[in-house]
Amino acid sequence: MSELTQSFDLSCLMPSGSENIVKLGHGSGGRMTTRLIENIFLPVLGNDILNELEDAALINIAGANIAMTTDSYVVSPIFFPGGDIGSLAVHGTINDLSMRGARPLCLSAAFIMEEGLPIADLEKIVKSFQQACLNSGTKLITADTKVVNKGAADKLFITTTGIGIVEKFPAPSVKRAQAGDCVLISGDIGRHGIAIMASREGLDLETTIESDSYPLHNLVWSILNDSNEEGYEKIHCLRDITRGGLAGVLNEIANASNVGIEIREDSIPIHQEVKAVCEILGLDPLYVACEGRLVSVVTANMAEEIVSIMSKHEAASGCMMIGRVVADHPGRVVLRSKIGGNRIVDLLSGEQLPRIC
Amino acid sequence: MSELTQSFDLSCLMPSGSENIVKLGHGSGGRMTTRLIENIFLPVLGNDILNELEDAALINIAGANIAMTTDSYVVSPIFFPGGDIGSLAVHGTINDLSMRGARPLCLSAAFIMEEGLPIADLEKIVKSFQQACLNSGTKLITADTKVVNKGAADKLFITTTGIGIVEKFPAPSVKRAQAGDCVLISGDIGRHGIAIMASREGLDLETTIESDSYPLHNLVWSILNDSNEEGYEKIHCLRDITRGGLAGVLNEIANASNVGIEIREDSIPIHQEVKAVCEILGLDPLYVACEGRLVSVVTANMAEEIVSIMSKHEAASGCMMIGRVVADHPGRVVLRSKIGGNRIVDLLSGEQLPRIC
Repeated sequence: MSELTQSFDLSCLMPSGSENIVKLGHGSGGRMTTRLIENIFLPVLGNDILNELEDAALINIAGANIAMTTDSYVVSPIFFPGGDIGSLAVHGTINDLSMRGARPLCLSAAFIMEEGLPIADLEKIVKSFQQACLNSGTKLITADTKVVNKGAADKLFITTTGIGIVEKFPAPSVKRAQAGDCVLISGDIGRHGIAIMASREGLDLETTIESDSYPLHNLVWSILNDSNEEGYEKIHCLRDITRGGLAGVLNEIANASNVGIEIREDSIPIHQEVKAVCEILGLDPLYVACEGRLVSVVTANMAEEIVSIMSKHEAASGCMMIGRVVADHPGRVVLRSKIGGNRIVDLLSGEQLPRIC
Repeated sequence: MSELTQSFDLSCLMPSGSENIVKLGHGSGGRMTTRLIENIFLPVLGNDILNELEDAALINIAGANIAMTTDSYVVSPIFFPGGDIGSLAVHGTINDLSMRGARPLCLSAAFIMEEGLPIADLEKIVKSFQQACLNSGTKLITADTKVVNKGAADKLFITTTGIGIVEKFPAPSVKRAQAGDCVLISGDIGRHGIAIMASREGLDLETTIESDSYPLHNLVWSILNDSNEEGYEKIHCLRDITRGGLAGVLNEIANASNVGIEIREDSIPIHQEVKAVCEILGLDPLYVACEGRLVSVVTANMAEEIVSIMSKHEAASGCMMIGRVVADHPGRVVLRSKIGGNRIVDLLSGEQLPRIC
């Protein structure tokens, strides 16, 4: 063994028994997350509703069609350009409800605070949480607070659960994409992930990029209700882009609907600064998280009208048609590059950017 | 300054600016928790439903009377005699729904995992979570998993949100206690807290005490439905005993209903070993947490029947009438001691046992 390899301990790259512990990559939203859910959670907890793996579960309770969704927010840092963990925790939950066509009604929130969290920070975040509730027409109806000793959490984690009501069917679903459908995106990708990265300690990235964190319920309402009368059932999938990025969402749709998806690289909107930071950090923007963008898959004859409806919303002023659903290569997402080649856009195995939401 | 005081740094007792950070005591369920909620959360987030501060919120959605509750579980250690964080996270949520007379229907769960958590531990906890769901007639319908870097959480936190349906009114409420009512308890107190303490590293307590963690939905169903026909509305309050202990629950009822409560020390069931450990550790068992016990406040003419109904349940075989609601000293809980004296049972200010649930 040379001096060099001796001084560089390779065991950190492949620790013994590393398959038997939870790793950061398991939280990526990529293939490791999928494997953890498929191997550990679903075989034990699985049932007809949970197995759907949609953004929100649908359940009929005493005649009411309820949508329910939950997410823990562990973003670091808790304040970032364009938002904080409080507004993010509301927007993320509102968006998950909206993606099933549900009208968000009410939220619960559980705050896990680390001993030593400045009260002033907590106050700011609570205010931001409430402002986001007001902006989304929802309210917090039940909550919990826990405190753990210093070092047992990182400042603040918030778990938000949302309840909404579904008034029309069929609800948009990750399983409803069909060959021939058009794939639309509501705006440029990757701002949230890059804003978080840029605000992390030790990274001195000169960028003015702010998170795209935004509640999409009004945009979705328009997509579902402002088109012509027979439009509703032609909106097949809605999925907000979060961890795993655009690539993650498209792969989920391709897999769940058992279809192929083809997208054109030159049609994907990416802000110049996001591109630049991705190049510096060696990130692929297709995998960088958003928190205020959605993909919609609609029948081809609706695509133009839906783009026109979307573009009236500030949150979707940069909407684009980026590709097509195809019968070929089911389960695969293929990118046609600017220079004409094709490449498969797979799920990442592990983590590109940890603790992004 | 003497050698002695020099070597004992008093600044840890009263750090400068200590009022401006979150402290462990803020998670106690005692007066510091109440102050944090009243000063920081409610002035910003408060609304007609949240302000109720009940175990579960009630909301009518499209004609369905829904109960919703949320709790983060941060118990340490994650495995303890009589349970683990998985079963606890289900039981706690089932119990909060049950205390409003709601029939538990479905759950969401969000898992925050620390990098390095053994997969085998996660598997055990997921199985225990599912077994608790089966025992409670509920199912997990939506979930989330997050992974944080090593040192940014302590092994595993679970946030469970529950949805139930309320089929009869008036729902039991912490505000409905009336002078003349009887105060019943379903069993002996403090087992959960002592089981957790005994399993903490470094404490070598020889005890066979197991947590009382248990889903109380069937017990509550019997209390509400098995009594004579006019019984339902005479069940005024149901409250499960968690952090803050029996003293916490009784103070909440006394405050919210603006009544006095008088309990007799010799009527409060406490296991001999719980008593012994409390003496060793200097704990007052009135403040030690349970996770499978409830207090019910019922009209005096119902008390005997309800004790008889409760005692048919394994979970309440040790049920007792422990005291009365009185018009005197509203907001105060008074204990009549074995030797005849009275003492006020106040909320503790801070933390007796951190991270108990």
